[in-house]
Amino acid sequence: MDASLATDFSASLPGWLVDDLDDLAARPLGSIEERIALANELADRNWRAGNGGPFAALVVDRASGALVSVGVNVVLATDLSAMHAEMMALSLAQRRLGRWDLGAEGADLELVVNWRPCVMCYGATMWAGVRALTIAGEGVEVEELTGFDEGPMPDDWIGEFERRGIRVSVGVGHGDAIEVFRAFGASDAVVYNARAGAAAARDASAGDH
Amino acid sequence: MDASLATDFSASLPGWLVDDLDDLAARPLGSIEERIALANELADRNWRAGNGGPFAALVVDRASGALVSVGVNVVLATDLSAMHAEMMALSLAQRRLGRWDLGAEGADLELVVNWRPCVMCYGATMWAGVRALTIAGEGVEVEELTGFDEGPMPDDWIGEFERRGIRVSVGVGHGDAIEVFRAFGASDAVVYNARAGAAAARDASAGDH
Repeated sequence: MDASLATDFSASLPGWLVDDLDDLAARPLGSIEERIALANELADRNWRAGNGGPFAALVVDRASGALVSVGVNVVLATDLSAMHAEMMALSLAQRRLGRWDLGAEGADLELVVNWRPCVMCYGATMWAGVRALTIAGEGVEVEELTGFDEGPMPDDWIGEFERRGIRVSVGVGHGDAIEVFRAFGASDAVVYNARAGAAAARDASAGDH
Repeated sequence: MDASLATDFSASLPGWLVDDLDDLAARPLGSIEERIALANELADRNWRAGNGGPFAALVVDRASGALVSVGVNVVLATDLSAMHAEMMALSLAQRRLGRWDLGAEGADLELVVNWRPCVMCYGATMWAGVRALTIAGEGVEVEELTGFDEGPMPDDWIGEFERRGIRVSVGVGHGDAIEVFRAFGASDAVVYNARAGAAAARDASAGDH
């Protein structure tokens, strides 16, 4: 390696989603059912397009449903392991509004995701200033059906949000979310938890004995 | 708001750090003490420069100490709440190596941070493919001295790393790390946990009674 280190990085939504953004911004998102349905639909399109895992997220104005940002998982497309759907949606909402606290200026914004965030995105949601999290489900089905590791979450993960002023809603669109994971799991799509190094270490260690 | 949503975002290291990168890449980082000393030094420079919190991170080759990336907290500079030091260092390492799994191709890379990661960066470290985490300390001092919320971490946070093939070392340079937090806490620098919305909600609720 030479001495020149990277000094910046960027991440973009996939082209198919950029092309659809004007239509999505005009779509009725007044109800939780409509918001979750959009998250499930984009999650399914995303993994089929090869951008990353079967996950999508929206930031909307809680009262009106006005769309502030859309994110999908682009780990494979960007070669950046942190670019989960929630990280994209929260960062793009902050870009659009020009501030790191999405809850400033009286805004009451909601993050909508097709499943409970992994431990990284759990923290990212906590720091971003959204005032609500709405998800289709929270169980181990995502790990069992897809093979992704979601990381260790605190038992009282909802209480930890609510003590920080973030309301949590779970369960609308649960069956549709499961179907997306089932289809992903039945495919040969890449599960991108970084385990190549750990597996190599285990193999080497096993070889020592 | 008009209908045009953001489609990409980027994040850069601050100019003072970019200017120093060639010097840093030539600096001896063979020992844990040298690595932590650099993290503590950059953490202190970072908050004084106004880029964000008093946090810095490096990715180094564990055996040789060759520097792969450097990150500092740029939440304030980027207006993105996720741009903690660890997220910058991990993403910039992935940019430099051109892959989302830093542990692929036999690489044995270490993330060095001036304190235990917050819950978001805990997950980010788990997904990035580094094989080791080295930190100066892990206690509540960071929250007590600086006012930052670090989020709910699992009790067995080290075990959760080690079961995923990530070794953890804690404690070298602890006193110097504390001094950085103490100086930050005694200043009037911004604590960027997003709480404006939550505080407004509490005030409104209190006003109802």
